[in-house]
Amino acid sequence: MSMAFGKVDGLTESFIERLRKAVAIPSVSAQDENRQDVFRMAQFLASELEALGAEVHQRPLGKQPGKEHLDLPPVVIARYGNDKNKRTILVYGHYDVQPALKEDGWATEPFQLTVDNQGRMYGRGSTDDKGPVLGWLNVIEAHKKAGVELPVNLLCCFEGMEEYGSEGLEEFIQAESKGFFKDADAVCISDNYWLGTEKPCLTYGLRGCNYYSVSVAGPAQDLHSGVFGGSAHEPMTDLVHVMSKLVDTHGNILIPGIMDLVEPLSEEEKALYPNISYTMDDLHQSLGSKTSIHPTKERTLMARWRYPSLSLHGIEGAYSAPGAKTVIPAKVIGKFSIRTVPNMESKDVNKLVFDYIKAEFAKLNSKNTLDVWLQHDGKWWVASPKHWNFTAANKAVKQVFGVEPDMTREGGSIPVTLSFEQATGKNVLLLPMGSSTDAAHSINEKLDKRNYIEGVKLLGAYLHYVAEEPMVAA
Amino acid sequence: MSMAFGKVDGLTESFIERLRKAVAIPSVSAQDENRQDVFRMAQFLASELEALGAEVHQRPLGKQPGKEHLDLPPVVIARYGNDKNKRTILVYGHYDVQPALKEDGWATEPFQLTVDNQGRMYGRGSTDDKGPVLGWLNVIEAHKKAGVELPVNLLCCFEGMEEYGSEGLEEFIQAESKGFFKDADAVCISDNYWLGTEKPCLTYGLRGCNYYSVSVAGPAQDLHSGVFGGSAHEPMTDLVHVMSKLVDTHGNILIPGIMDLVEPLSEEEKALYPNISYTMDDLHQSLGSKTSIHPTKERTLMARWRYPSLSLHGIEGAYSAPGAKTVIPAKVIGKFSIRTVPNMESKDVNKLVFDYIKAEFAKLNSKNTLDVWLQHDGKWWVASPKHWNFTAANKAVKQVFGVEPDMTREGGSIPVTLSFEQATGKNVLLLPMGSSTDAAHSINEKLDKRNYIEGVKLLGAYLHYVAEEPMVAA
Repeated sequence: MSMAFGKVDGLTESFIERLRKAVAIPSVSAQDENRQDVFRMAQFLASELEALGAEVHQRPLGKQPGKEHLDLPPVVIARYGNDKNKRTILVYGHYDVQPALKEDGWATEPFQLTVDNQGRMYGRGSTDDKGPVLGWLNVIEAHKKAGVELPVNLLCCFEGMEEYGSEGLEEFIQAESKGFFKDADAVCISDNYWLGTEKPCLTYGLRGCNYYSVSVAGPAQDLHSGVFGGSAHEPMTDLVHVMSKLVDTHGNILIPGIMDLVEPLSEEEKALYPNISYTMDDLHQSLGSKTSIHPTKERTLMARWRYPSLSLHGIEGAYSAPGAKTVIPAKVIGKFSIRTVPNMESKDVNKLVFDYIKAEFAKLNSKNTLDVWLQHDGKWWVASPKHWNFTAANKAVKQVFGVEPDMTREGGSIPVTLSFEQATGKNVLLLPMGSSTDAAHSINEKLDKRNYIEGVKLLGAYLHYVAEEPMVAA
Repeated sequence: MSMAFGKVDGLTESFIERLRKAVAIPSVSAQDENRQDVFRMAQFLASELEALGAEVHQRPLGKQPGKEHLDLPPVVIARYGNDKNKRTILVYGHYDVQPALKEDGWATEPFQLTVDNQGRMYGRGSTDDKGPVLGWLNVIEAHKKAGVELPVNLLCCFEGMEEYGSEGLEEFIQAESKGFFKDADAVCISDNYWLGTEKPCLTYGLRGCNYYSVSVAGPAQDLHSGVFGGSAHEPMTDLVHVMSKLVDTHGNILIPGIMDLVEPLSEEEKALYPNISYTMDDLHQSLGSKTSIHPTKERTLMARWRYPSLSLHGIEGAYSAPGAKTVIPAKVIGKFSIRTVPNMESKDVNKLVFDYIKAEFAKLNSKNTLDVWLQHDGKWWVASPKHWNFTAANKAVKQVFGVEPDMTREGGSIPVTLSFEQATGKNVLLLPMGSSTDAAHSINEKLDKRNYIEGVKLLGAYLHYVAEEPMVAA
């Protein structure tokens, strides 16, 4: 392993050059005019992988739904090593990026990797997710050049539509779980971020999301509040009353039964929190205000990661422009979502939500009509952090960074995580490369040189420890 | 009077022709490209009035605020008769119209008066407000042609910006109340509608309107509900809670003290309601639903006319588009208004509203910040229906239509009413010509031939009775 590490240091400039080439391809999946660049980026990856000796395929996904004049970018899949005596690790990343324009406020050209004197490498896609994707290629190259055999078989799944809803990917993963990916023993995804800037983390959980609409309708058309105010039941009044019954100021979900679905906090889980490298100042800085609900970092992180939350997003059909309009809207649709956690099953949550909202509306005694429905749901995900996949990553962090990684969950969702778990039935690990300050999706996206180069070592070390871990079920 | 009435019948076709010419001029005040048409319409009115022997002026109002490349249309003012022994009646109307396009769904060309076999005269401005304005001209012509002297002096004030906020008019009325309008003994405005289709009404009251904004702000920028849901006070949650405390489903205003400001219902006033020609079916038809709050027409009309109401109009800053977005809005601004009635003074209402909202927000114990302010207010108006101005109109209705008019108020506001009352200090009467089915501001606007022709007689009879009424203070 140390021979390969030495090579990583020696290859630093060539690894940065690889990233420079990748960033220079504006593979923006959301913009039609860049679709050829997304294809170019797929070809770049495929060529690099082939040059390293991998078996590579660019798998077409057909036409883009809703934009049938566009071909979806291919999934670049690759195999490096085919030794039945080795474990096989399936790694995922994406080679498309968010849009970026210099005019948006970038200090540098977004598609030109620019390294400053503190080693911050600015460029669209540097951290999300070209750096991590190239990390795997760099691991292979370092091993080859060091003359060290990769201790595992590597399967790659690199998609080109992640920033635009991963069109077609779930079906592809499902199909290939019995095909190209069938040997996978575990999955590793590098597409999220450290909690802070100093300490790597391993992510073992994500919240799900149930998104609801609740509509209240009355008159056949919008009414003038002067003419009709006081004489008719107003849908907006009813909706606001119903929405006010969902959650309180302190984030407590007021729908009876929801909290009963939540897995109780064990002492073991509780013990994970105090050591996590995070402070209330970190929260206040990211909020840009001190409007935190909880007094401690532990309770804050639990609220984000392992407890559900309910947010009111807005109201469709009401007056939402600046200024003043004396309208009584005829039909209004409230939008809210519940972030779900173990063991909240979507259908149970739906039933509690629907029953409660209908009961609260019935209490109002209004002649208006209410409807409530689920817009979409996505399940939470929690992996066992005691699985060898995590143990290996833990050892790798200690080896490369000399610290125990933060064991984190995330409040949001990364749907591909669940897709891999469900399709392969294997343990999935989220092993981020970038830090919390990388500004993915924002202007001045960057990846620190340390995170990139030590990150390559981390991925390599992870593969070594994976090979060494005993064969036990998690 | 009967001689003049006979002339009206004889002149029917020529009166319709006058309306046809007026409708043909697309004097849309809201559209820059029609500004010359608005001026043309002013010239048309001025020419017609001059041809009838009136002293006419077109008074410029300067540049349009915010659109300084446009001249405001003139106020056409006129005097017909200058006999110190006669009463002087100031009449108001407007010669501009709402926009109209055939494509909007008109069955006929909007700027081409089209009379169907039931005597419905379709055309933009037919009822709002060219028909009523020409009504006064027709009265003068009928008297002239009948050789009957007009029993009063007539002052006209016809504006060309009513559909675009009556820019500059209030100041103009204020100034001319000591000038051109100084002799006015009473004011008559014909720019509203009968409550139904069969029975004329006299309108003696309007509600005012206090429009409020209430903002709640927390984080420095919108947040992702996955990442932050559960850890920060959400402005939308707080705002919805505060808004839910303002009014209940049954239209009851929940702000303590507001109802104490309302003038108690006297037996005399109460007695006006049962005879009013209005049914719950009429309400349900205009709502397009049966979502009425009150069981009787009396209570319904009182709720619209003589009690305050509070409507929630919408929320600025929250997610209002169709679809789903998992945003925690950083700052949201709720909009609501209170329709005011005697004796609610704006400053008293404001204090009650501000104190209550701040107190309710304080109860939430949120770290977010709340602000609440008045966007604009307009005072309610109530005239004495026992004034000779109303008595004369009452007799005129009985003379022309053979029925006692409905004594009505309106739930909305007609700001010019208050402007005239405050500037002249004289009694103001709202004497509508059109019916409730005329669809002013909508497609297929029309004025029924009966309303127009009998309406001319009504205006004429009103002037005769005005001359006869005894000189007593109202």
